[in-house]
Amino acid sequence: MALDRSSLVPALINIAVRLRIDSVKSTSEAGSGHPTSCCSAADLVAALFFAEMRFDPKNPRHPGSDRFVLSKGHAAPLLYAAWAEAGAFDRAELLKLRLIGSDLEGHPTPRLPFVDVATGSLGQGICAAVGSALNARRIKSDYRTYCMIGDGESAEGSVWEAAQTAAVDALDNLCGVTDVNALGQSRPTMWRHDLEALARRWRAFGWHAIIVDGHDMNAILDAYAEARGVSGRPTMILARTLKGKGISFAEGKDGWHGKPLKKGEELERALAEFELQFVPAPPGVNLPQQIPAPASLPMVAPAPRPMPPPAYKAGAQVATREAYGTALAKLGEADERVVALDADVKNSTFSDQFEKVCPDRFYQSFIAEQAMVGAAMGLAARGAIPFPSTFACFLTRAADFIRMAAISGVGIKMAGSHAGVSIGEDGPSQMALEDLAMCRAQPNIAVLYPCDAVSTERLVALAAYHPGPVYIRTSRPKTPVIYSADETFTIGGLKVLRESRDDVATVVAAGITLFEALKAYEQLQAGGTRIRVIDLYSVAPVDREALAAAGAATGNRLITVEDHYAAGGIGDAVAEAVSDAGIQVHRLAVREIPRSGKPEELLDRFGISASHIVDAVRAVAKGKPAGVAR
Amino acid sequence: MALDRSSLVPALINIAVRLRIDSVKSTSEAGSGHPTSCCSAADLVAALFFAEMRFDPKNPRHPGSDRFVLSKGHAAPLLYAAWAEAGAFDRAELLKLRLIGSDLEGHPTPRLPFVDVATGSLGQGICAAVGSALNARRIKSDYRTYCMIGDGESAEGSVWEAAQTAAVDALDNLCGVTDVNALGQSRPTMWRHDLEALARRWRAFGWHAIIVDGHDMNAILDAYAEARGVSGRPTMILARTLKGKGISFAEGKDGWHGKPLKKGEELERALAEFELQFVPAPPGVNLPQQIPAPASLPMVAPAPRPMPPPAYKAGAQVATREAYGTALAKLGEADERVVALDADVKNSTFSDQFEKVCPDRFYQSFIAEQAMVGAAMGLAARGAIPFPSTFACFLTRAADFIRMAAISGVGIKMAGSHAGVSIGEDGPSQMALEDLAMCRAQPNIAVLYPCDAVSTERLVALAAYHPGPVYIRTSRPKTPVIYSADETFTIGGLKVLRESRDDVATVVAAGITLFEALKAYEQLQAGGTRIRVIDLYSVAPVDREALAAAGAATGNRLITVEDHYAAGGIGDAVAEAVSDAGIQVHRLAVREIPRSGKPEELLDRFGISASHIVDAVRAVAKGKPAGVAR
Repeated sequence: MALDRSSLVPALINIAVRLRIDSVKSTSEAGSGHPTSCCSAADLVAALFFAEMRFDPKNPRHPGSDRFVLSKGHAAPLLYAAWAEAGAFDRAELLKLRLIGSDLEGHPTPRLPFVDVATGSLGQGICAAVGSALNARRIKSDYRTYCMIGDGESAEGSVWEAAQTAAVDALDNLCGVTDVNALGQSRPTMWRHDLEALARRWRAFGWHAIIVDGHDMNAILDAYAEARGVSGRPTMILARTLKGKGISFAEGKDGWHGKPLKKGEELERALAEFELQFVPAPPGVNLPQQIPAPASLPMVAPAPRPMPPPAYKAGAQVATREAYGTALAKLGEADERVVALDADVKNSTFSDQFEKVCPDRFYQSFIAEQAMVGAAMGLAARGAIPFPSTFACFLTRAADFIRMAAISGVGIKMAGSHAGVSIGEDGPSQMALEDLAMCRAQPNIAVLYPCDAVSTERLVALAAYHPGPVYIRTSRPKTPVIYSADETFTIGGLKVLRESRDDVATVVAAGITLFEALKAYEQLQAGGTRIRVIDLYSVAPVDREALAAAGAATGNRLITVEDHYAAGGIGDAVAEAVSDAGIQVHRLAVREIPRSGKPEELLDRFGISASHIVDAVRAVAKGKPAGVAR
Repeated sequence: MALDRSSLVPALINIAVRLRIDSVKSTSEAGSGHPTSCCSAADLVAALFFAEMRFDPKNPRHPGSDRFVLSKGHAAPLLYAAWAEAGAFDRAELLKLRLIGSDLEGHPTPRLPFVDVATGSLGQGICAAVGSALNARRIKSDYRTYCMIGDGESAEGSVWEAAQTAAVDALDNLCGVTDVNALGQSRPTMWRHDLEALARRWRAFGWHAIIVDGHDMNAILDAYAEARGVSGRPTMILARTLKGKGISFAEGKDGWHGKPLKKGEELERALAEFELQFVPAPPGVNLPQQIPAPASLPMVAPAPRPMPPPAYKAGAQVATREAYGTALAKLGEADERVVALDADVKNSTFSDQFEKVCPDRFYQSFIAEQAMVGAAMGLAARGAIPFPSTFACFLTRAADFIRMAAISGVGIKMAGSHAGVSIGEDGPSQMALEDLAMCRAQPNIAVLYPCDAVSTERLVALAAYHPGPVYIRTSRPKTPVIYSADETFTIGGLKVLRESRDDVATVVAAGITLFEALKAYEQLQAGGTRIRVIDLYSVAPVDREALAAAGAATGNRLITVEDHYAAGGIGDAVAEAVSDAGIQVHRLAVREIPRSGKPEELLDRFGISASHIVDAVRAVAKGKPAGVAR
C-alpha cells in the first residue's frame, strides 16, 4: 500500500459507508436479514478488504490468496457488499439477496466462489479458519487467514477449541477479529462491552489480543498491522463496535437483531443518515483497483503416485481400524495432499501409522472433535484431502460440523472407529450406534463400512478421491481378511459373498455382522438351508438394483443385520432402496441401550449374532416376521 | 468433622491406597480398563468422599445430598471403589467390573444409584454438574456439587461452555477438580504439568482457581475447604498428579493409558508396592462411618396443578414454535419442577414466554448448546423437568450430549424450532433436516412433531410427564389451528384427519407438510379422488397398527411427506412400522442440500408441496413408484 493514511482513511471510511448502505438496502429489499450485525462490522471489513488482504477479486479461489472467513455468517450481506465493492460481481446483484434464483443466500455457502465453507452455525468458521491456516503451512504459502466472529458467538465451546488448536500450532498466519457489538439475538451478550474480559480469555488461550475501537479506521489499520507482525502465535483483534452503527435509531439498541429496515420512511431515513457520513476524500484514490495480488505462488503438490495393492493374506486377522491406519499411511505416501487429524486417540484409530510416515501433515487436535472436523473443513476447502478420525461415537460431538460440511460440500473424509456393541467392555458411552444415521441423513455424504482389511484399504483410497464428504466406519475386533488384493470396490457397490439357486433369503450385513452372517450361512447350510449373503460395504449410496435383484431371487426375503440402532442405518437404507420393488425387509439391529460385556456376548444379547440370523432366516422362510419391533 | 488432621490425614491416605488397590485389582480381573487414570485421582477422591462431602451411602439419591460427577468417566473403577468403601455395596462386587451381569460397567451409567448421568464422553459431566448446581438453587438446598475432570478432557469446548455458564450464574455451590496427570491417551496433554496455564484459563472464565499437589492430603483438604468458602463464583481445584501414582513402573509414564496390569507378576508387584504405602493410623478412626448426612432437607415442590386447556380458536394462525412458548409458560405455572433453558434465541423459540412467568427457573446458556443440553441433563437427574430449546438445527450441536442423555435415560425435554426448508430465506445453515434422524436413532427418545397450536400444547404437557428424553419439533411459519381444545393426544398416537371408503392412498404427514397434504386432499377431491390423511404427530414411537390399517384400507398405498431429508425421518419410521404388513411406502422428502428462498417456493422446489403430493397420489394409484430415488 503506497497510500498514506491521510488518503487511505477517508477512502476506507467511505467504503464502509457504502457497505452499510448496501447491507441495509439489500436486507430491506429481501424483507429479512441482519443489517445491524453488518453495520457493526463494516469498518473492520472495509479495512480488511481494501487495505490489508491480498487477493484477486476475479479469482477468489486463487490458492495463494489471503482468506476471509465470516464466521458470524448472518452478516452475509456485508460480505457480499465487500466482494461487490471489490469488483467480484455487479453491485446490482446485491438486491437479489435471499431470492431463490440468487446464490447470495441468507447465510454464505460455497455456491459463491469467495466462500470456502458455509457459515451461519456459529463457532464453526473459526475452526475452518484454523484449517485454512494449517493449509498455508502445508503448501508453504505465506497467505494469511482472517476470520471474523461475533461476541455472542464467542460463547460456543468450539471457538475455544479453535483457539487452543491455533495456539498449540503457533498459527501466526491466522488473525481473528471479534465484532464486539455487545448485543446478542435476544439480549445483551454475557460480556456486553467488557473487552478486557474477552481479552483475558484469548490471552489465557495463548493468543495475542488487541483491543481496538472498531469504528476508528486508524486504530483498525494499526491493529491489522500489529497482527501481521506477531510471530509464533495467532492474534485476536477485539473490536468495540455498536450494533446498527450509523443508524441513529438502531445504533447500540436492543431489539434490532435480524430485523431489516422497513422500506419507505424507515429505510429512507437511514439512507439519508448514511449519506451524511461520507467524508471528503482525495481524488484519484480507488482502493478496489489497488488490492494487492496474492503475494506468492504456492507449492503445487506432485501428482499422486499409485498406491501399492493391499498386502494382506487371506484369513489373516486384522481389525478394520488397524487396516484404516495402514491404508492412510500408504495413501499419505502416495499423495501429498492427504492430511490426517486426530483427537488424541491415534493409537486406537491407528492414524498414528500416518503420523509416522507423514509427521508434517498430521495435525493433533487433542480431545476437541469439533475443532478437528472444523479444521478438516478448512483444509478440504483449500485443496487438501483431510482424514479426521476418532472413535465413531465421538464424531457425533461434531454432528453440527458434519451438517455444515455437507452443506458446504467439502471433501472431508471422516473415519470413525470402535463402532457398535462389538467394542465390548467399555460400555455404551464408547459405542457408536447412531453414526450411520447421522451421516446417512445428509444427502451428500458417502457412507462406507468395510468388513476386512482389503476392503478397508480400497475404500480409504476411494474415499480420498470421491468428490464431497465421506464417512468410513471401522470396527474394534480383529476380523479375517476375506477379499483378495485384486478385488475391486466402488462407492455405491456391494459384494454378494454367498449365493445359490436355492437361497431362501438374502442376509445383508456389513462390518462386524458380515461375519455373523457367514457363520449363520454355515449353520444353515449344515441343516440344508441356503442363504444369500451380501456385504453392503457402501451404505450410502446403496446398490438398489443389486439389492432388489437379490431380494427377488430369494423369495423377496431380505434380512438386514447391523451393529447399530434400528433407526437410520442399514435396515432403513436397504428398505428404502427396495421399497419400489415391493420387497419386505426384516431388520436385526440393536433396539435398546446396551451395556458392558464381552463383544460376542453383546452381539448375542442385543440380537445381531449368527444365532439370531439363523432364527430370522427360519422365521421369514416360514413367512413370519423376523426381528423385534421397536 | 471432629477429627483433627493428625488423625484424618493418615486415615485418608490409607483409604486412597485401598482405592488404588481396588482399581488395579478390578481392572486386572476384567482384563481391561484404566487403572492408571484411577491412581492419579485416588487421593483427591478419598479426601472428597471421606472428609468433605455430605451424603448417605445407603441412599445415594437423597435429594439434599452433595453430588459427585465423575466427568472423566474412564476412572469408573475408582468411583466404584469409593462407593464400596463408603458402604454402598459389598467390595467383592468390584471384581465383577465390566461383566455383562454387573452394573459396574466400563464407564458409569445411572443403572447405578449413585450415578446421576452417564459419563465417558469427555467434557459432558461438568455440563451436567452445572445443571446439578442450578438444581440446588431451584430447590433451595445447600447441597454442593463436585465434578472431577481430566486435564486431557479440558480440551473439549464443552468444558469451557460449562465454565462460562457456571460463572455467569455465580455457582459457588459448584467445585471442580482437575486431575492434571499430564498424560492423555496417546501422548502428553497440551499443557503437560503447566498448571498455571490451566489456572489462567479458569480465572479468565471467571472461576476461583486453586493449584494444589494432588498427592498431598493436607493440601487437598485445604483446597476443598477454601473452595467451600468462596462466594459468588465456582472454584476449580487444579491438582498436579501422576498417572499411575503408586505403581513404580507406571507412575508418570506414557504408554499406560487404558491398560490393566497383567494378572500374575505385574499385578502382584504393584499390589506389594501398595501394601508398603499404608501408613500408621490412630485406632478407632472409621471415616466411612463418619460421613456426614445431607445437611438440609430440600424444598419439596408442590403437586402440579392442572393446566388449563388450550385457548385457541379453530382456524387461528399460530406458529407451533409460538404455541410451544405459550404451552411452556402454562406448564411452568402449573408445575414448579418445570425449568427452561435457552441459547440466546428465546425470542425465536418463544421460550421467553416462560421466562416472563417463571424468571427464577429460566436459565440462559447464551450461544452454547452443549452446555444447555448438558445442564438440562443434570437438572433432570435431580428431579427437575427441563425444557432446553433452540433452533432444531442447533440441537445437532449437542448431538453427543443427546446420545449420552439417551444412555442416561434422563428426562430432558428438548424442543427444536425452525425445522425444515419451510423457514425460508435464512438458508440451509438454519434449516434442521436431520433432527428427526438424530433423535429417532436413539431407542428411547420420544419424537413429537405437532402441526398446530392445540396439539403443540397437548404434546408439551405429555412430554413433561413422559419418563425419559423427548424431542419436540416445531415450525417457523404460522399454521391454522385444526384441533379443538378437547382433542386428546398420546405419545405413540396419530390422527386420521380425512378418510372415506374410497381412499386410493394414505398420505402420512406431520408439522408443516400436514397442511400440504390437506391442500392436496382438496385438489384431489375436486377431481373426484379421495385420499386418507394422517397427522403423524408422534414420530417415535409410531402407531404401527393404525398405519398398517390405513395402508390396508387404501390399497396398500402409503405416501409420506416430510420437511426433512429422506433418510432417518418419517419415511423410514413409517416404512419400518408397516414392513411386516407388506405395505410399500412412497416417500416425499428433501433430497438435496437446499437453499434460500420463500417458504412456499422451497416446499415446492424440494418436492414436498401439495402439488408433489397430488402427483405422487396419482402415480401410486396407477401403480407407479412415487418420489425421487436418492
